[in-house]
Amino acid sequence: MRDLPIGFLDSGFGGLTVVKESLKQLPNESIIYIGDSARAPYGSRPLSEVRQYTKQLTAFLMEKGIKMLVIACNTGTAATLKELRREMPIPVVGVIHAGSRAAIKVTENQQIGVIGTKGTVESHLYQKVIDAKENNMTVHERAVPRFVPIVEEQRINDAETMHIINEDLQPLKENNVDTLVLGCTHYPLLRNQIQRVMGEHVILIDSGAEAINEVSTLLDYFNLGRSSDDNQKNSATQAYYTTGDGEDFAHFTRQWLNQPDLTVQEVVIRGDEIIDYSNEK
Amino acid sequence: MRDLPIGFLDSGFGGLTVVKESLKQLPNESIIYIGDSARAPYGSRPLSEVRQYTKQLTAFLMEKGIKMLVIACNTGTAATLKELRREMPIPVVGVIHAGSRAAIKVTENQQIGVIGTKGTVESHLYQKVIDAKENNMTVHERAVPRFVPIVEEQRINDAETMHIINEDLQPLKENNVDTLVLGCTHYPLLRNQIQRVMGEHVILIDSGAEAINEVSTLLDYFNLGRSSDDNQKNSATQAYYTTGDGEDFAHFTRQWLNQPDLTVQEVVIRGDEIIDYSNEK
Repeated sequence: MRDLPIGFLDSGFGGLTVVKESLKQLPNESIIYIGDSARAPYGSRPLSEVRQYTKQLTAFLMEKGIKMLVIACNTGTAATLKELRREMPIPVVGVIHAGSRAAIKVTENQQIGVIGTKGTVESHLYQKVIDAKENNMTVHERAVPRFVPIVEEQRINDAETMHIINEDLQPLKENNVDTLVLGCTHYPLLRNQIQRVMGEHVILIDSGAEAINEVSTLLDYFNLGRSSDDNQKNSATQAYYTTGDGEDFAHFTRQWLNQPDLTVQEVVIRGDEIIDYSNEK
Repeated sequence: MRDLPIGFLDSGFGGLTVVKESLKQLPNESIIYIGDSARAPYGSRPLSEVRQYTKQLTAFLMEKGIKMLVIACNTGTAATLKELRREMPIPVVGVIHAGSRAAIKVTENQQIGVIGTKGTVESHLYQKVIDAKENNMTVHERAVPRFVPIVEEQRINDAETMHIINEDLQPLKENNVDTLVLGCTHYPLLRNQIQRVMGEHVILIDSGAEAINEVSTLLDYFNLGRSSDDNQKNSATQAYYTTGDGEDFAHFTRQWLNQPDLTVQEVVIRGDEIIDYSNEK
């Protein structure tokens, strides 16, 4: 069991920001990732649909064999964390609680901003989680639906991008937040731009990176950590799957994780199932 | 169950650094604390004895009723975490794993210093936990048995204190550590002095404060968090017990937690039990 990989799922590329943190903090752990690029972005879909897709991705990862599931997607977390925790035989980690905890820890003026997809913001889960822990905080939630397409379409360095970010974050600047939760795992890819707009005094919380702290805690708690005894580290594995274009996904992933030899396997959505045909050859 | 307090135990005052972080990050949670000042410090006692004492403190807290146990003492964690996790019907949190995780996260030169009591250092638990997660780290463990008495005897501002700290930390400065784990919950009370000796470039990890992150994670995971609905926050309670001198303990605790009205109850060690006579009046 301890040698099984940790499974990560996301609507597309975003969850790779969580994987990057896992490779850094937990290098002995094997990982398996699936990005649902064919149906990304999830953010503006009804939560019932997001729930259905998330469960398909989960079933795919369970079929491959995992010891822990990370919903490396805020919209997916909002839609399914509670349900999956109840149903799954392994620990399930989302990204919203971890981001909320970090925000409570660092804010000094009790004005916390949260940016996310439409689905995440309309679920008000950040607001609820923060309120339940510390009800003196004011949480300013704001949907910024234009951010994910910028990342998925790799328009990060386009001239128009700074303009969009500047426009969409204005209300939060006016709210005088001293802490801003990047409530979507795609946003850390726009971190520099967001920091420039918000100003250096605002602390940006990467909810995905914080989630790895939670993963590490639960690995310890349930004694599920893969140990580095016997030089196992060298045999920690990584596997990447996408429902979208494999080459496109690989191009991005190699750059982001700085692994030029990384390969990505295309998988196919058939009815309610996600199928890895390469496995059946 | 969710309304029960979180129990904290320590050999003396040190665990109050963990409580302070709990009051900040989890203000809705009730807490109950016991410090075994009559038998402090634990650091140079055999681990078998520390185990026996820790279990007595645990039994006392369980009798009072708690939903989670925090071993707010590194020596106690080294001696009993594994055993208590197996035996207890509630989640048990120690301080060593949390401190290790934080150190791995922040170090840039992979040279991690750990200071602790003799018991903690000789258990090599920091070394083991860090190695298991990331075996490229070099961990420099060092026992500094003169630190705890400085805190317990409230000699923090004495002239000799800076001299002792400077002398005891020299080897770690020579090891060129960029991260230093304060592997005893008493040490954050000497934080300014330690920072001055190590230099501003060294990041100090407060293992106790990090443990609250773990507490918060497990409260969420097991759905044990006390919610702030219905203005419950106002009724979150705090109770402090000591096996030592109540007035002495109260004096220190009021100052440290900035709560001038706080009271401390003396309890008595009788054979293998710790008894709260005030309860039996």
